[in-house]
Amino acid sequence: MATQQTEHPIAIIAGGGSVPLHVANAALSGGRKVLVIGIKGEANPGIDRFAHDWIHFGQMGRLLKLLDDHGAVELVLVGGINARPDFSQLRLDFWTLKNLPEILSIMSKGDDSVLSGTIKMFEARGYTVVGAHEIAADLVSLPGVIAGTKPESNGFDDIKLAISAARNIGKLDAGQAAIVVNGRIVALEAAEGTDEMIARVARLNASGRLKWKGRVGVLAKCAKPQQDLRVDMPTIGPDTVTAVDRAGLAGIAIEARQVMIIERDETRRRAELAGVFIFAVDEREVAI
Amino acid sequence: MATQQTEHPIAIIAGGGSVPLHVANAALSGGRKVLVIGIKGEANPGIDRFAHDWIHFGQMGRLLKLLDDHGAVELVLVGGINARPDFSQLRLDFWTLKNLPEILSIMSKGDDSVLSGTIKMFEARGYTVVGAHEIAADLVSLPGVIAGTKPESNGFDDIKLAISAARNIGKLDAGQAAIVVNGRIVALEAAEGTDEMIARVARLNASGRLKWKGRVGVLAKCAKPQQDLRVDMPTIGPDTVTAVDRAGLAGIAIEARQVMIIERDETRRRAELAGVFIFAVDEREVAI
Repeated sequence: MATQQTEHPIAIIAGGGSVPLHVANAALSGGRKVLVIGIKGEANPGIDRFAHDWIHFGQMGRLLKLLDDHGAVELVLVGGINARPDFSQLRLDFWTLKNLPEILSIMSKGDDSVLSGTIKMFEARGYTVVGAHEIAADLVSLPGVIAGTKPESNGFDDIKLAISAARNIGKLDAGQAAIVVNGRIVALEAAEGTDEMIARVARLNASGRLKWKGRVGVLAKCAKPQQDLRVDMPTIGPDTVTAVDRAGLAGIAIEARQVMIIERDETRRRAELAGVFIFAVDEREVAI
Repeated sequence: MATQQTEHPIAIIAGGGSVPLHVANAALSGGRKVLVIGIKGEANPGIDRFAHDWIHFGQMGRLLKLLDDHGAVELVLVGGINARPDFSQLRLDFWTLKNLPEILSIMSKGDDSVLSGTIKMFEARGYTVVGAHEIAADLVSLPGVIAGTKPESNGFDDIKLAISAARNIGKLDAGQAAIVVNGRIVALEAAEGTDEMIARVARLNASGRLKWKGRVGVLAKCAKPQQDLRVDMPTIGPDTVTAVDRAGLAGIAIEARQVMIIERDETRRRAELAGVFIFAVDEREVAI
């Protein structure tokens, strides 16, 4: 066990939600040491169950020193960032100020560029950025049924069209999700996000502008081709199931291996309870 | 003038709004006789300024008899249909009942199929269906500025991206419109329609989830490749300008020759007053 003591820990830089805790547990179960570094105001206080420390937004110097002190070279960046940091709350340390031109140049680009720029910044300094699903494999799904039963014929046509639509708007870098009901694309996601898109379909259904009988239609969620899945995955979770249920849709289709399922047990439980299917599509099964 | 007396009139089958009146005036100005056939509950009562008659939904037999009585062989189908007809209000005449299988087969398909099926039904009986813009050419626009000034550099990049996005979702048969702000696709239209999509962007802006300074961003509207422009054109009008103004966008880009401008004078007046540009893009200017 002496090797365990001296092994480099995997550093989990933690935003909000339960996923960083899940990743930390998975790493421990896999026999790895962990160091959880929580972002103040974002990370779950529950990280105190693990070897941990805290940083503020803007304390890149402190972050690098923590990694150095613990000998961590592998990083996982995981968890939600609710808001762009309030600039009055920023505590820029010396390292950050010194490297501000590089950081500002990264921050001024779009979301995807911020993330890929952050990865590059770490990699240029010798760190390896690892995807959360590479530590906790159950965050994603293999092809097949996750909840409910796989829809047949018409239902599967809706899945194929929705996946195709979601991939197409992903190629445009517009969004990751689409809703199809009875062969018709009824919603495409862009800046409003998946939850608001589902709520819109619920409203169109409630107002009678979209009508269907029983549970039909599917929400599809896919990764954008240019998305770096190590730091930015499309996600579904219990709230997605509740929203899909309220909209009267039959289920959710995700791309296998590419979409993160947050709180998988609770997600499945709600889906089974509501009679909503969740199905992971093999990419080879659906052409664009 | 004797030829004028015996000339076949052009039959304008009129749904709601001012466009059927505009088309009737344009036909008269062009030296054509007109017969306006208003759909009860939809057409503007102002059709009584022209040679006219009324039909109810479901009176296809009566419609064909009217066309026959007046010797009309060219038809324009124009104007809004607010609602799928209430079946309790239908007055199916004998012809309609006799041809119900053909009609139901048409009605059971999607919107585009209903329209193309209707055209086929007329054409099979020897009528020619003409587009409203083929009678009133000012319903569409040649390439160039319609209101305001053509945006330069960044603004024109937004136009190109928005037109490209709108065409792409048109190919998916999802919608006709997209909104781009500072190089980012922020909204894609599907079943909610253009007005609600613009209102969504206004809300995202008001809530701070989308931020920009000054007037930037563009709404693009394009025809779907499979759209039959004789009976179904994408449209903009005064309300589109007001919605774009409220959302804080810089302007509207439409495809030249393919998008109908309702109440062009009022549309331009509002755009100039609000400082919103309207620009018609030459299809050769923007690649998909």
